[in-house]
This record gives sequence, C-alpha cells and structure tokens, in this order.
Amino acid sequence: MKVKLSKDVLEANEAMAEANAARLQEAGVFAIDMMSSPGSGKTTILERTIDDLSDRLQIAVIVGDVSTTRDAERIEEAGAEAVQINTGGACHLDANMIRDVLDDVNLADCDILFIENIGNLVCPAGYVLGEAERVMVLSTPEGTDKPAKYPAMFRTCSVALLNKIDLSDALDVDVEDFADEIERVNPEMQTMAVSALTGEGMEEWYSWLQAGMDRMRQ
Amino acid sequence: MKVKLSKDVLEANEAMAEANAARLQEAGVFAIDMMSSPGSGKTTILERTIDDLSDRLQIAVIVGDVSTTRDAERIEEAGAEAVQINTGGACHLDANMIRDVLDDVNLADCDILFIENIGNLVCPAGYVLGEAERVMVLSTPEGTDKPAKYPAMFRTCSVALLNKIDLSDALDVDVEDFADEIERVNPEMQTMAVSALTGEGMEEWYSWLQAGMDRMRQ
Repeated sequence: MKVKLSKDVLEANEAMAEANAARLQEAGVFAIDMMSSPGSGKTTILERTIDDLSDRLQIAVIVGDVSTTRDAERIEEAGAEAVQINTGGACHLDANMIRDVLDDVNLADCDILFIENIGNLVCPAGYVLGEAERVMVLSTPEGTDKPAKYPAMFRTCSVALLNKIDLSDALDVDVEDFADEIERVNPEMQTMAVSALTGEGMEEWYSWLQAGMDRMRQ
Repeated sequence: MKVKLSKDVLEANEAMAEANAARLQEAGVFAIDMMSSPGSGKTTILERTIDDLSDRLQIAVIVGDVSTTRDAERIEEAGAEAVQINTGGACHLDANMIRDVLDDVNLADCDILFIENIGNLVCPAGYVLGEAERVMVLSTPEGTDKPAKYPAMFRTCSVALLNKIDLSDALDVDVEDFADEIERVNPEMQTMAVSALTGEGMEEWYSWLQAGMDRMRQ
C-alpha cells in the first residue's frame, strides 16, 4: 500500500515535471535543480554566479525554503530575479510547486533558471521538477563519506560542486579524496572543486553553464 | 486526503513510540534521539563520548543510515554496542523501525541508548521514536541561519550541540552568534559549544547525560 501510493505520487510528479520541462525548453531556459545538505553553500554559490555572470546573462532563481525568505532576499540583493517557495515544512520541492510559480518567472527574458531546493541530501533526489540538469553541492566540512552514505543524490546529479575548498587546510582534507569517493558512487559525475567565498574554481562552473545553455538553444 | 494520511501515520507512529518509551523506561535506559544535517559530526561526537564514558557507563547506539554500515562500524570500533538500521532510502527513522531493533539491544546492561538518526534537518523532527530526550547537532560551517531556516528541528530538541568550534577562527564565526540565533527560535534550548575533534566543551555534555540518567532512575 505504502509502495503503491509512493509510486502513484512519483508518477504524477513525473508527468508534471515533463510539462514544466517542455515549457522551459520552449522558452529556451536552461533550468538547473540545485541540491545539497543544509549549509553547504548553495545560496553563496548562486550569489557569486549572479554577480559574475549577470552582465551577460539573465538569471532567475526559484528558492525553496522550509521557512523564512532569507535566501530569496540574498538572491535579490545579488541582482537576480528571485521567486520564493515556502514549503511550510515539506522536505523537498516537487513539480507541482514549480508549476505554480513558473508564471511568476519572466521566462521570456531568462537564460538560466536555478531552482534552489530544500537543504536535504535524501528526499529531493526522488522528485524531478522539469530541470534540464541536476547539480549538487557538497562542502568539504561534511566529510568524504557522503557519496557512499547518500548514493541516490550522487547518482542522480551530473555535477558535484565541491565547495569550501578554502577550508581544506584547516580541515586537513584533500580534494582528491572527495573526487575519488564521488567517482566510486557515480563514475559519470563531474566534480568541480570551488570556493564560493574566494572564487577559486568558479570559471569551470561558468563554462559548464555556458555549454549547457548553448546545447539548450541549438 | 494527503493531510489525513499524514495525520494517521503520525498518530500510529506516536502510539508505537509510547510503547518503545515505556519499554526503555522500565529497563532504566536513558534514550536520546540524535539529529542533524549530514556531516555535522554526530558519529564523531558519539565516538568521543563512548571513548570518554565507557569505563563507567554502558552505552549502546542504534545507527540509522540510508545506505552503508560505516557509522555502525565506527561506533563498534569506539567500543560500544551498535545496531544498524538501513532505511533503504527513507529519510528518517520511525518508531516502528526502533521497535524492530530493540530486541537486538542488550537493554538490561544499558545505561544510555543513543539513536543516531538520518542526517536530515527536516523529516526526522516529525517522528518521535520513544526517546527521553532529543538532541541536535549543528556544526559551525553550516552557518548561523539554520535555526531560523529549520525551526521545527530546533524547537523539538532540548539541546543543541554546536560542534566544530575548533573551526571558528578559520570560518571567522562567533559562537555567540549561533547561540543568539538558536535562542531566538527556541528560548528553552540549551546550547553547548563543543569540538568532538579536540574535546573542548565535552564535559558539559557529559554532565547533562549524567543528570538525565539520574532523573531516569529516580
């Protein structure tokens, strides 16, 4: 019974996500679902990305939060359009929530739409939203065992942004060890070592965004 | 319909948790549900606690994990009894899972039972397990905005272990700022600043554990 309900819910979600994806593709918008643990630095990465790219790209962000509008405020201060979804306690975004707010995004003038999911390494992995790509952020203080402990999340994303590499010395950790653990769980995954604080490594991320956008518009 | 199901599930969970709690109380076991984000240091805190207290207390740990048995292995290496629950993808423990493994714990020879929940700041808050106390771990790299962003978790726990204070300088953060943000969300919450790595601040935690155990046995 539990399994059946879950399957029905997921199938309904997938149908809705396909409709969202079609709408985004038609508008030429490159949509990315950003997922991570709480505190890994999703919002800081987006702030810097907006700051560095907004002179040449139109970026919008749908910000999911269990409570508060803090992240959406930070995104707007960074200079991008932000649309807030307050899930009122729910632990992940779903395709229906995204459909409900897509009307509020200026899709005609949007190149990249980031969907900042709830900070949670488990539940969001199971719900597609209509995104073209899934990206997850892992921060160095979380430890190298996260890929093996949360494999569904690591298997479903094409990119891992390994954030807070500026703390590597203080933590006495090696970026290579993270990359090895990620590769063991998902050999296809592209790991990009970055520091949203110092800007180190962000160029590779920006090139990946540009390539994804180019593919979307071919 | 969705709300009704959810309410039924939670009520069934609460009834099961009460039965677990009665069983634990009868055995004189002080049971603690430990919750946090992934990578905040729950297992490292438990390793040090076991190392420091196992000469005078019998400690057992029920370890919840979505995948892998790494944490249970670490707990056993530290010298405590460990019972693993692999949730196979589920994002929280529930009272039924705890009931299923309580037979595997040597309750007659147990003073403190830690239940290490899935790394997740959202879902575990909604499910009581039969614990006497709920404790959450927040680590300094996660940032000071977590209490406001995940209020349900902070309101349901009596203690916040603020871990990784050894990184305060590298992160340029102030322990007081975390305590202030926690107090704003839950004025009753007791914040203990600790480093499971260096051992700083752990004595206050051990005193709290001893006092809880004494209450349980009065």
